[in-house]
Amino acid sequence: MTHAIGSRRWAIADGYIPSSSASDDPELASHESACILNTGDTPAKVEITLFFSDREPAGPYRLAVAARRTVHLRFNDLDDPERVPRETPYASLIESDMPIVVQQTRLDSRQPPHALLSTIAYCQE
Amino acid sequence: MTHAIGSRRWAIADGYIPSSSASDDPELASHESACILNTGDTPAKVEITLFFSDREPAGPYRLAVAARRTVHLRFNDLDDPERVPRETPYASLIESDMPIVVQQTRLDSRQPPHALLSTIAYCQE
Amino acid sequence: MTHAIGSRRWAIADGYIPSSSASDDPELASHESACILNTGDTPAKVEITLFFSDREPAGPYRLAVAARRTVHLRFNDLDDPERVPRETPYASLIESDMPIVVQQTRLDSRQPPHALLSTIAYCQE
Amino acid sequence: MTHAIGSRRWAIADGYIPSSSASDDPELASHESACILNTGDTPAKVEITLFFSDREPAGPYRLAVAARRTVHLRFNDLDDPERVPRETPYASLIESDMPIVVQQTRLDSRQPPHALLSTIAYCQE
Repeated sequence: MTHAIGSRRWAIADGYIPSSSASDDPELASHESACILNTGDTPAKVEITLFFSDREPAGPYRLAVAARRTVHLRFNDLDDPERVPRETPYASLIESDMPIVVQQTRLDSRQPPHALLSTIAYCQE
Repeated sequence: MTHAIGSRRWAIADGYIPSSSASDDPELASHESACILNTGDTPAKVEITLFFSDREPAGPYRLAVAARRTVHLRFNDLDDPERVPRETPYASLIESDMPIVVQQTRLDSRQPPHALLSTIAYCQE
Repeated sequence: MTHAIGSRRWAIADGYIPSSSASDDPELASHESACILNTGDTPAKVEITLFFSDREPAGPYRLAVAARRTVHLRFNDLDDPERVPRETPYASLIESDMPIVVQQTRLDSRQPPHALLSTIAYCQE
Repeated sequence: MTHAIGSRRWAIADGYIPSSSASDDPELASHESACILNTGDTPAKVEITLFFSDREPAGPYRLAVAARRTVHLRFNDLDDPERVPRETPYASLIESDMPIVVQQTRLDSRQPPHALLSTIAYCQE
């Protein structure tokens, strides 16, 4: 490995966690993920800030991504400093002290079967 | 927060609003969104121009995105200076006086259940 | 309008036209599109080259995108110099003499209801 | 053709191969692909490294993409030096000695009909 790939600042503009799921399988529950890759040899300290349409931002949510690891984080699971509201438009800013790569994926199972969307997030140093 | 993330000029090439929806739930109505994030401390004035295959562009459509807020704008709801035609290919140019991040998402519920697509839009200063 | 947004060289790596469609509605037939936006005041001359896994490239396919217009081109409709094979992995290089924006979208209706995918293409001058 | 389009280093943060498929059709089996395009006149030597949440990376997986060809690689088919685990979050780093373009696509057919996601991967020299 030469140097870590990625950027230290990422944004996802379309955040939305559906409120219901047609399936009881946890893998098929409606959820939204920020998949984070750290290819480097140094752990990355990551902070996530959530933005809304009608209130001040929430966060920072803090997590670590170890060296040479990926974390597929579900926004559904965030609860410190507060839970992410369901059925509520939001957006996120993801900042790291080391280069990382971020991809957003949503699984929407309000109606069976589920629908998927995914995109590499927007980055800018 | 250091400086706002984003760009002042964005484009979405594949615009299309399906004409029908299999569901009566407004959340599941066929729609297309431009999700806009303003992480900065200054409100952003945004202008959207729509392009078509066989006529001159429409717009500008004007909106504001307040400081530290996100707007998940449905193209379906635009009506000033004119409504966005359904079942008609279009594209959009989104210009702002402040850095913003733009992501396009379409929910297509012509047939139940719905399908989703999403991508970070193209940006260039 | 100041200057046109976009790039002159674009690529889509995942090309694939499903062979069948569960619907008789032409809008819901399985298809793959390159949506091209020309925001400038000069018509764009566009050339598309198709790449395959086991043969030399096909093309160029030529089209024009008028000033301030979008073309949502279906790969299904290309037939000069040759038709695009179905159920066959391909990729495309899209070159223009003027700046354009390119987005790929696939509607796959082999099984009802349809699935969608979309991404802004890759660009590099 | 002037010069090859693309980059030598690409990353996909959201890797996941569903464990089951509702269809017996191999085309509709759940799978994840890295679609690689080499528009240049020189063969590209490609190495893929896989990252996980709780173990050291796997690989490199080696493949060649001939001049003026595309390879739509299924992660499902990789088995040297080891098989890609199912139902397990992973991410990938794709490095090449020549410029290439990489796009990720997943077909998820755990429930019929299938869902699709796709995005141009992240690149950085």
